[in-house]
Amino acid sequence: MTRLFGLLLLLILTNVAYSQAPLNLMPMPQKLERKEGKLYLDSNFRLSINGNPDVRLYKAATRFLRRLDEQTILWFKQDQITSNLTDEGAILRIEVSRPAKIVLKEDESYSLSINAGKITVKAATDLGAMYALETLLQLLQADQKGFYFPHIEITDSPRFPWRGLMIDVVRHFIPYEVIIRNIDAMATVKMNVLHLHLTDDQGFRIESKKFPKLHEKGSNGKYFTQEQIKDIINYASDRGIRVVPEFDMPGHASSWFPGYPEYASAQRIYEIETKYSHFEPAPTMDPTNEQLYIFLDQFFEEMTALFPDEYIHIGGDENSGKQWDANPKIQEYKQRHNLKSNMELQTQFNHRLQDILSRYKRKMMGWDEILEPGISKDIMIHSWRGKKSLNEAAKKGYPVILSHGFYIDLLYSAQDYYLNDPLSESKDLTESELSNIYGGEAAMWTELATAETIDSRIWPFAAAIAERLWSSKEIRDVKDMYRRLDKVNNRLEFLGIAHKKNYEVMLKRLANGTDIAAIRTLLDVVEPMKGLSRRKQGITYYTYTPLTMAADAARPDSKVAREFSYLIDEFTITPAPHLADSIKRQYQIWIDNHEKLKNTMRFAPAIRELEPVSENLKRLSEIGIGLVNYLQKKSKGKLKEREKISEAQLKEFGTFFKVAGKPWANVEFVVLIKATERLLNEAKK
Amino acid sequence: MTRLFGLLLLLILTNVAYSQAPLNLMPMPQKLERKEGKLYLDSNFRLSINGNPDVRLYKAATRFLRRLDEQTILWFKQDQITSNLTDEGAILRIEVSRPAKIVLKEDESYSLSINAGKITVKAATDLGAMYALETLLQLLQADQKGFYFPHIEITDSPRFPWRGLMIDVVRHFIPYEVIIRNIDAMATVKMNVLHLHLTDDQGFRIESKKFPKLHEKGSNGKYFTQEQIKDIINYASDRGIRVVPEFDMPGHASSWFPGYPEYASAQRIYEIETKYSHFEPAPTMDPTNEQLYIFLDQFFEEMTALFPDEYIHIGGDENSGKQWDANPKIQEYKQRHNLKSNMELQTQFNHRLQDILSRYKRKMMGWDEILEPGISKDIMIHSWRGKKSLNEAAKKGYPVILSHGFYIDLLYSAQDYYLNDPLSESKDLTESELSNIYGGEAAMWTELATAETIDSRIWPFAAAIAERLWSSKEIRDVKDMYRRLDKVNNRLEFLGIAHKKNYEVMLKRLANGTDIAAIRTLLDVVEPMKGLSRRKQGITYYTYTPLTMAADAARPDSKVAREFSYLIDEFTITPAPHLADSIKRQYQIWIDNHEKLKNTMRFAPAIRELEPVSENLKRLSEIGIGLVNYLQKKSKGKLKEREKISEAQLKEFGTFFKVAGKPWANVEFVVLIKATERLLNEAKK
Repeated sequence: MTRLFGLLLLLILTNVAYSQAPLNLMPMPQKLERKEGKLYLDSNFRLSINGNPDVRLYKAATRFLRRLDEQTILWFKQDQITSNLTDEGAILRIEVSRPAKIVLKEDESYSLSINAGKITVKAATDLGAMYALETLLQLLQADQKGFYFPHIEITDSPRFPWRGLMIDVVRHFIPYEVIIRNIDAMATVKMNVLHLHLTDDQGFRIESKKFPKLHEKGSNGKYFTQEQIKDIINYASDRGIRVVPEFDMPGHASSWFPGYPEYASAQRIYEIETKYSHFEPAPTMDPTNEQLYIFLDQFFEEMTALFPDEYIHIGGDENSGKQWDANPKIQEYKQRHNLKSNMELQTQFNHRLQDILSRYKRKMMGWDEILEPGISKDIMIHSWRGKKSLNEAAKKGYPVILSHGFYIDLLYSAQDYYLNDPLSESKDLTESELSNIYGGEAAMWTELATAETIDSRIWPFAAAIAERLWSSKEIRDVKDMYRRLDKVNNRLEFLGIAHKKNYEVMLKRLANGTDIAAIRTLLDVVEPMKGLSRRKQGITYYTYTPLTMAADAARPDSKVAREFSYLIDEFTITPAPHLADSIKRQYQIWIDNHEKLKNTMRFAPAIRELEPVSENLKRLSEIGIGLVNYLQKKSKGKLKEREKISEAQLKEFGTFFKVAGKPWANVEFVVLIKATERLLNEAKK
Repeated sequence: MTRLFGLLLLLILTNVAYSQAPLNLMPMPQKLERKEGKLYLDSNFRLSINGNPDVRLYKAATRFLRRLDEQTILWFKQDQITSNLTDEGAILRIEVSRPAKIVLKEDESYSLSINAGKITVKAATDLGAMYALETLLQLLQADQKGFYFPHIEITDSPRFPWRGLMIDVVRHFIPYEVIIRNIDAMATVKMNVLHLHLTDDQGFRIESKKFPKLHEKGSNGKYFTQEQIKDIINYASDRGIRVVPEFDMPGHASSWFPGYPEYASAQRIYEIETKYSHFEPAPTMDPTNEQLYIFLDQFFEEMTALFPDEYIHIGGDENSGKQWDANPKIQEYKQRHNLKSNMELQTQFNHRLQDILSRYKRKMMGWDEILEPGISKDIMIHSWRGKKSLNEAAKKGYPVILSHGFYIDLLYSAQDYYLNDPLSESKDLTESELSNIYGGEAAMWTELATAETIDSRIWPFAAAIAERLWSSKEIRDVKDMYRRLDKVNNRLEFLGIAHKKNYEVMLKRLANGTDIAAIRTLLDVVEPMKGLSRRKQGITYYTYTPLTMAADAARPDSKVAREFSYLIDEFTITPAPHLADSIKRQYQIWIDNHEKLKNTMRFAPAIRELEPVSENLKRLSEIGIGLVNYLQKKSKGKLKEREKISEAQLKEFGTFFKVAGKPWANVEFVVLIKATERLLNEAKK
């Protein structure tokens, strides 16, 4: 009841009150009340910190000040923020009760009040205070008089305590500086867990001083040094972000064996994989080898000294068991120990791992395959196969987080990720069972992403997931989400995120020194193939395949296509002339673009594969213009019988939509086809 | 005679022969002969390496392969290049006699031959072979049939052995990844020395394990760890680049003293400076303190273990001596030792430094102030005050390099830097004296540059300097330089250089979320104030002043302005109607832009300072259109007496040009004013 009232109030206040400029907050706070009035900024802006925060807040406040000054160019007089700071002249006063620990379920709440020349932030810990500063930066507005913060009262805290981003740094190595800038981006949308997928078949991406052959023979020289890892952990911790490392085992483990083949289930010479699949029997650790546990014990002793987080992710997914089946010694072991399946053998392996991790005071985390009878209750389950496993784990009393539906590398739309509520299928769970669901993680696998493209796969989509995990479940207005996402998207650039700027670089590379206008017009509306379809076309991608193609430059969830689709929706409701004009103008751009693109192609061989795509878009546009003209005539009642669309034409259009809807050159423009189909459906009526 | 013939041949072959696509090489090779024919590329492209190279060549060849594949998207089948490689099927065959040492005067020569399906690279060392690969990448062309290399014969070696880039990482810290990408860029234009200015008044940017208070108290946390330095050195060495560290002393030394005030010439508490000047008496080491030499000995013992290069740069510049003058103990020391000036005291200090460096088998290098009587001949002089000191050093037998005229942070044009021949004033020198001039360094100081903007200050201007230092002195066609520079400029983007992509980000920040078109139109033709003028306006810049202003986004040497200026030149020679139309169209864009910009400003307070700039550009454009119309009428003989420009008008224009020529908002558009003045001069005739 209170909640519903709060929601209504929120909607009223954010959308209509006082005809104020709309707020661009993401994630939306739990409670927000706008007031009349504005607090204008000038060079005297100054902040103070009171109470007992961790030192990280001084650094965060300094960064806040510099970011605000970079945006406003007001030349703030205040320099470095330190602990010896007076309240005198402070416009922004921050009060914190105690230093935060960077652990799961730390207090992240805050309140933020802006009124008559004063900004007040109160928080139990410096985490809350840092979130308040991010909210404040998002509140910055400008009018004729200058930059200002609107008067407002905010009370905020997260819905879920685990709001993560997983980055696969194996399939393509994602270097230090890319991780660093993504941590900055995470912080702006209040994400608090960076999960690094550090080892897999294609590489061992972390230095081991105890077992240097791991990274030396397992990485082609592409790995994080321990010093870099320490830097990443400190950098993340300074922003309230935990770092959870993953060492995938017993499968996905090829990269352990170039250095240490003795721990594999088949004795041969190993190299790291350059393909992503089809290397069965997949290299797998031999769980019957007692030496393996001594080795892993020492390995985890080293890694737990490096990673302070209480959770260590051991993967545990997709163990095909083929190497185990082919090894008589392992078969014999299973019989001797009465293990009926490979899964039972893996569960036994997991028990051993858990013993090792406990020794180093760590909890185990793994993909949902590890949820097998007998595994102890303090492990964290990471659900990737579906909400069934999420709920099953929660019911059984296991802490669990969700990544199913949050695989951003599959390049679905922000809307899809946004509407994926972790609790949408948990109606049968009790309150206590629900509390086992700790949140979720956006998962960014990198078979088809590189350091150059990864930002454009993560952002801004992860921000939609961040809001899903932070804000109230009632916040799910897709259009408003897209409006705010657009603002986040711009602000991310100021943090160094290269999602937009590398797009242009990639277009230039494709254009081979010629003009990029035509390529851009096309790639602005096409999207890379979604799901696993690009990799499932019978083409083998290697780790060294150039990911500089049109499909790599193109981004998921095209804004141009989406807004065009909205325009068509409007037109099908009210066929107003100005809408018809806008639609036809856009279609005409795509028609004209075809010749321009063909001209560009003459000296840009790398985009010649796009010719059929552009041709199809041109044809679609011609059909679209015809349909708009038709619908306009129809709405005016001027349509003659002989002008009506024939059955043959309808069929021809339908066939064309099907052909054009297939991916060519690994890209598609299904949104435009569907929009044009809606015109056709109107015409059929 | 042979040289002149070679030059003529070169000009003929590069510019006219066979109507082939022009080559986009930079720096231009010493000898080049184009042949009829093209070598087309496909997925079977393969290379082999023979002879006895350093292992760095295998890594370089792998990078070459991937870069070529990323550009062409041909899906080369060849993966990692290793030493066990056969010639079978190799299109590109590389032959190297011996491993290179990364030292001054190593053999950098190579030959490259492309013909009938074969590419052959021969080099004495892997350095030459790596340069050949860079040349090859620059030779890539495309036509209707696909990507190809033109048939060609190249023989190449550098004019000077020291082709450097100095980066000041103190005034603004320039982080690891920015250094790394700039090393990549240096390698593509065959630069071979990275000089890091590591310490100065505003920061101590390197970790010292022996004296941790140096970086801990002297850097605000912004410094390179020793591991990062090792990485930078290895990364550079893999690309044939030496790393020369600079520790500036005895002046420019404030950042040593927060940790170790006892070595300063005045005993007080020190902090690192946040201003760039006006902190006299400037903190200076006390050369009369014997403990200082023990300290420096230990410090250099640590640093020489880290930096393998034979040269250590000790700065030595701009010691005001004020702290020495104010210290009676130092005055007394000078008297006792019969030292007549502070310079003599500094020279004594330099002798001591040289002794220390010799102990660690290193040679000393310093700015030209250190060239004083009695200093031994194996020090390297770094001339920054003018060619006088360059020639003086060379005559006296000192090895010397030039940075005067290569200060790229002063934001002059590529043309200015390009035409600055190190030997232009050395006609009196003997061959042997000339051989003391080893080359030069582009110098990038960072009072007004940050990690975000530095690439746009270095590139592509440093490429023009790279050509000056590599190519024959006869290569100095400015228009052709700009044509090729433009190609370099694009290719730099593929290496991650952010000179262009960060421009757009900065425009967006300035636009505060509104459309950037109008800001871009303006900033595309204005340039930041040149020389030291921006800092000499009576405004104090601090290390934390936001460098996100219009002047920071604007780049030196506007291409739009330059090309417009060329257009005006053409028109003043032949007032053809199509030229008049082009000029008027461009002027009209600037006129129309003014209203658009004012509209943008409404919600973008950070660009309001640009209003007078835009207003002046509008007025200039109006005058320009009037003059073009006038000149057209005049050329047709249709000008009536009463239409002639009056003296009063002439005077008014002249006054306006002067006012508009002054910098507003730290930017200027002098090139456009001069171009319009040329129209006026034509009109006066």
